[in-house]
Order: sequence, then structure tokens, then C-alpha cells
Amino acid sequence: MNDTTTNRAPGRPRSERAEKAIIEATLDLLAAESGVAGVSIEAVAARAGVGKTTIYRRWPSKEALIVGALGAAKGELPAPSGASAREDLLEIARTFAAERKKRYSRCFWNVVGGAEKYPELYARYKQDVIEPRRAVIREVLRRGVETGELRADLDIEAGISMLTGSLSTKTPQETFPEGYAETVVDLLLTGIGAPS
Amino acid sequence: MNDTTTNRAPGRPRSERAEKAIIEATLDLLAAESGVAGVSIEAVAARAGVGKTTIYRRWPSKEALIVGALGAAKGELPAPSGASAREDLLEIARTFAAERKKRYSRCFWNVVGGAEKYPELYARYKQDVIEPRRAVIREVLRRGVETGELRADLDIEAGISMLTGSLSTKTPQETFPEGYAETVVDLLLTGIGAPS
Repeated sequence: MNDTTTNRAPGRPRSERAEKAIIEATLDLLAAESGVAGVSIEAVAARAGVGKTTIYRRWPSKEALIVGALGAAKGELPAPSGASAREDLLEIARTFAAERKKRYSRCFWNVVGGAEKYPELYARYKQDVIEPRRAVIREVLRRGVETGELRADLDIEAGISMLTGSLSTKTPQETFPEGYAETVVDLLLTGIGAPS
Repeated sequence: MNDTTTNRAPGRPRSERAEKAIIEATLDLLAAESGVAGVSIEAVAARAGVGKTTIYRRWPSKEALIVGALGAAKGELPAPSGASAREDLLEIARTFAAERKKRYSRCFWNVVGGAEKYPELYARYKQDVIEPRRAVIREVLRRGVETGELRADLDIEAGISMLTGSLSTKTPQETFPEGYAETVVDLLLTGIGAPS
């Protein structure tokens, strides 16, 4: 039997399309000047063209909705190939650098900048979005210590912060110089000190 | 002759006291939730107990006032002693780490977070407050390259960003672990890679 004569809309099922519209609407509102303050279930529902119940079925609160949308926008860090510590760190650094150019980078800026005003939202964002990304880097550094590529006494949490911090020194409007991700990874690996 | 019987207030001259009150009032308003939006010449004058003219005599605009207050709050980076690249970087890193605990750290957060909303203010802040601090680090790195302590091919701007970025990964409410400044400087110097 053939289904093409029915009147069904092509592509994804309706619930999936609604979810996508809700996430887009949340990110659009979050990227605006008003930031977190401009996001409400009402405003998202109106913008996405769905009922509030459709949102509440999936996200029980404004905080859950925002963190869910940020997670969807950022996505997980791709699992590094494991070729070497340097290659893995390069992959991660390039992903970070590329993400800054994305349309939604200012959503993240608004949530981090609002950390004091919305501490619960920020805590949840850190736990659900940032921590899984740090975990990927942590795993790369641990593996590098095991293989002997990285120093045995490495302070892994400091290493993670140095990598992410070095790639976060600019606001969304500023750009890094060409090749910055590579420069940072190599300086992080070999150090700025003269080789002894 | 003896001046103690006159009715003059002790300490600094009146204009200096007024300036201090204006700067404090600006920082208090800037540290509030409303951030940059809550600062106006009117509000600062009222809070500092001075006339608007007194402010305008010294700072011709709201932007000049905010950047002036931030500069006064942050102060210049102390000139490093020049003992060694490592010692100098440690002094700078410790200053950065200590500053985060200061009452006014969230003023800076509010201005950097508002970079997109107030681009001229941010540009002026970068030029008048941030750039002179980067210049101090730049000089330390240049000297280190000259003395042979640092690698001859060092990308100095990347080195500056890695130091400042590594020390800026937390919001004002979060704290760095004990000894973090030292850990960062040593990892930056020697690298996270295993010694070859």
C-alpha cells in the first residue's frame, strides 16, 4: 500500500515540530536584550504558536525550559576520536571556537551574566549543560595522563578551566584571531616557558 | 600660628571627598541588579549628596563616569617586581584572584555582560581599564622572552588571554580552589604535557 495520497504533512511528527518551535522561540527571546527576564511560558507559547499546556507537558517550569533550550542549542561535545591528547583537545577547542559564532551564543552569555540574579537557573545550567561538557574534557585529560602524554601530576580540574577559560575571553561580538584554538592547545600542552 | 581652633573638617579637601562619594555611589548603583541601566547622573548625584554639576565638571557623560569609577575600583595592576617571569606572573595572577573577592567585582561583570547592549561603554571600558592591565602582562611576557625564560616564538597576545581567561572562569559568586593562581601559572609555564 501507498501512503502518498493521504493529507499528512511531510517530515517529522507534529509533537517534534512543536518541540522545535518551542525551543527556537525560547532561544529567540533569551537572545534579546531583556535576556532571562524576557522569557516566560506565555511569551514562548505565543511566539511558537502552541498552547501553554504543550510546553508544560514537556518542561514543568521556565527554568527547565530555558536549560532545555540551551542544551538543545549547544548540544553535547562530540566524543573526541581518541587519536591523541593533542588531537582530542584540538577537536574540543575548535568546537568551542566555532560555537561562539553561532546565532545563539548570546543566550549563554545572558544566562551566565544573570547568574547572580537567577542563581537556580544558573546552577541548573551548570549541572545540565556545562558539567557534561567538562566531563568530556576531563576524560580526555585523564586518558592523556594514563597514556603518559600528559604530566602524571596534572591538576585536571585546573587544566579543564584553563582550556575553557582561554576560549572564553571574548564577548559574543568579538572574534578570536585565525588559528587561535590551535595556538591555545599547543601553548597549554607545551607551556609558555622556554623548553628546558 | 595654630590652625586647630578653626572649624575646618579634617582630612581631604572637599572636592576630593565629593569625588570619592560620586565614585562610591556609581559603583553601588552599578553593582545592583539593574546594572548599567540603573546608573544615571541624577541617581548618582542623589546618592552621593552632590549636585549634578559637580559630577559633570569631572565626568562629561554617564559612560565616562562609569568607566572612571571602574578604573578607580580596579586600580592599576601593580608593576611586577621583575624578579623573574614566573614571579611576575604569580604576582599578577594573585592580584586577579584577590580582586574577585572584592565588593565591586559584580560591577565589572555587569559591564562585560552588557557589552552588546552598551557597546560604546564596553569599548571604552576595554580601552581605559582592561588594555592598561593587558599592557602590564604583555611587558612581563616580552621581558621573559628577552631573558630566555619564555619560549622565543611565544604568541604573546594568546599568552595574555590564557592567563586572564584561566582566572575568569567563575562568576563573582563562585570561588577558586586554594592555590589556584599558583597552579595556573605553573601549568601555563610548563604546560600540561608530560616533560619530554
